[in-house]
Amino acid sequence: MDRRSFLRTSTIGGAAAAASTLAAPAIAQGNITWRMVTTWPRNFPGLGVGAQRLADRITTASGGRLTVEVYSAGELVPPLQSLDAVIDGTAEMSHGAAYYWQNKSVALSFFTGVPFGMTSREMASWVRYMGGQELWDEVYDQFGVQGFLSGDTGTQTGGWFKNEITGLSDLQGLRFRTPGLGGQVWQALGVSVTNMAAGEIFQSLQSGTLDAAEFVGPYNDLALGFYQVCNHYYTSSFVEPGLATELVVDKAKYQALPDDLQAIIRDVSQAEYDQVASDFYANDPRALNTLVNEHGVTLHNAFPDDVVEAAAGAAKEIIGGILNSDDDLTRRVARSFIDSMNLTRTRTEATDLTYALARQRYLDYSDL
Amino acid sequence: MDRRSFLRTSTIGGAAAAASTLAAPAIAQGNITWRMVTTWPRNFPGLGVGAQRLADRITTASGGRLTVEVYSAGELVPPLQSLDAVIDGTAEMSHGAAYYWQNKSVALSFFTGVPFGMTSREMASWVRYMGGQELWDEVYDQFGVQGFLSGDTGTQTGGWFKNEITGLSDLQGLRFRTPGLGGQVWQALGVSVTNMAAGEIFQSLQSGTLDAAEFVGPYNDLALGFYQVCNHYYTSSFVEPGLATELVVDKAKYQALPDDLQAIIRDVSQAEYDQVASDFYANDPRALNTLVNEHGVTLHNAFPDDVVEAAAGAAKEIIGGILNSDDDLTRRVARSFIDSMNLTRTRTEATDLTYALARQRYLDYSDL
Repeated sequence: MDRRSFLRTSTIGGAAAAASTLAAPAIAQGNITWRMVTTWPRNFPGLGVGAQRLADRITTASGGRLTVEVYSAGELVPPLQSLDAVIDGTAEMSHGAAYYWQNKSVALSFFTGVPFGMTSREMASWVRYMGGQELWDEVYDQFGVQGFLSGDTGTQTGGWFKNEITGLSDLQGLRFRTPGLGGQVWQALGVSVTNMAAGEIFQSLQSGTLDAAEFVGPYNDLALGFYQVCNHYYTSSFVEPGLATELVVDKAKYQALPDDLQAIIRDVSQAEYDQVASDFYANDPRALNTLVNEHGVTLHNAFPDDVVEAAAGAAKEIIGGILNSDDDLTRRVARSFIDSMNLTRTRTEATDLTYALARQRYLDYSDL
Repeated sequence: MDRRSFLRTSTIGGAAAAASTLAAPAIAQGNITWRMVTTWPRNFPGLGVGAQRLADRITTASGGRLTVEVYSAGELVPPLQSLDAVIDGTAEMSHGAAYYWQNKSVALSFFTGVPFGMTSREMASWVRYMGGQELWDEVYDQFGVQGFLSGDTGTQTGGWFKNEITGLSDLQGLRFRTPGLGGQVWQALGVSVTNMAAGEIFQSLQSGTLDAAEFVGPYNDLALGFYQVCNHYYTSSFVEPGLATELVVDKAKYQALPDDLQAIIRDVSQAEYDQVASDFYANDPRALNTLVNEHGVTLHNAFPDDVVEAAAGAAKEIIGGILNSDDDLTRRVARSFIDSMNLTRTRTEATDLTYALARQRYLDYSDL
């Protein structure tokens, strides 16, 4: 069943029309209900749970004046049609990741996770203080929607491989699931890249359609069972150094809300940028311990040097290519991203990295 | 004038009595105004600005039902009496840093910045997912208040020194401004440590009372003018790897608020944990460029190895000592902090650190 016929036959689909009858004065005075579609399965660790919690927090902080009902992946529309659902009025909100919509605008890739790009902290600084939000608004204005950062996984893991990667030569023709610009980087190294939704990955690994896959990190990957078919786990990704999720809202309906409800949507989204990351940093290491101690997974900290170096070169070529895009706005987004990262990475490297290395080298609390 | 006589004579002080006449039903129905005192000067970059913005965001998100008025350092009470002002009812809220109140409970030191302790991301994970908030609540319950994370500076800089530090021997007798447990670490290395409020540091450096000082990072330090008297700037602190600010609220008055206003205080505080850090990561590197390019400051990435190693040993001894505290709650806080950090640091080191090193080594966008 395609999405259009699904919408025609679904009783749930009728609600889009109902929502559009809410005039501004009614919004200001009465209680309203908004639909949030998500790209994540219901109760999916970190991300699906985060989307539901964000919805609940808006409902609570607004005292029920704005109640948000969550429709997880496939419940109202297929996961990768979540943005379209907001654009066409089927839902008022979408929770997902901006790089899923690269086919609408390459510029959207920059507001999620970019290969050899910004860490989560750098991303938030760019969006909030260095012109990122304004550029993101320009991109989404073309579609009548508004985006907010709404969650963050932190630096992701590099992925699951059936065989150890000893160098570039092992990558030739390897069938690897990884999305977005990161996928383009792997492809430049000779990998055969495909993207597929979370629920399909395990089966593809098991059937032999895939040799390797990356998704998020231990917290999710343990739940998805990848350890049953792949033994080699690389704990650091160079293609997703930070992965921001987004809340996308129908802009006209958002702007018709009273100021306090607009503020609550913004504040809760920003709170969730921290909450989701806290969830991952608390639960990833617990899951990683389980993967190693109970399932015998072999960990590799970094990919081999020749792979990392070639990947950095490929990333630079891909991002540099976007600087020459035909689309002026896309060029400006890439320019702003690069300039901001060149500045903020100096802080990460001189301050954060120096501390992390000092602690790693000299502090051992394991016997306390 | 001491604080008690200040409170007796100040007309502003009378508001404490007025606030206490607000019974719960009145709170639920009418608009109320709360006073926030802060440990920061008004408009102080990052921190004072953050306190004001947090107050304004609560006012906006509540539609004015809860209006928060900010009294900066010294405007209602002296900066280091902000917590007391909430305890004695002079104000409903305080914005500061928990380690300022070590004299009330050593356990409070753990909820700000701990030498060789948690990064900001690890701190949020501990507080939100690993029992930290519950322990913090136990500590503050003794004083009838409630604490929330409300801001974060990220890893701070190591400080300003009139002379370069070439090794441990240069530290003997050095007069250094640095607060909290970090001060105890420096003291163990032979440094003569003092604490003083932001506004007094410059004068003490100039007069020769101090040989060195650390405060926050370039964004604040540029404004305070330390470069005029010290040329050597160390860009990474091992005693303040993350500095969380806190919002402290009168617990009884907080619990008397309707659920939506309680949620707004929580949500806005958490949003500010991200906002303040974003401010620092965007503006620290800009300020650092100014310090180097316009004021000729000499940067040192790390302190000498023998200093770092000795400091890690001292930190371990100090934190280990707190594990043997007479106070059961303090012991439990220290235990929880150490166990949580031992877990979350594995993620920081295997994933974030590995990525940051790979980017530092292989990616140069400066010619793009």
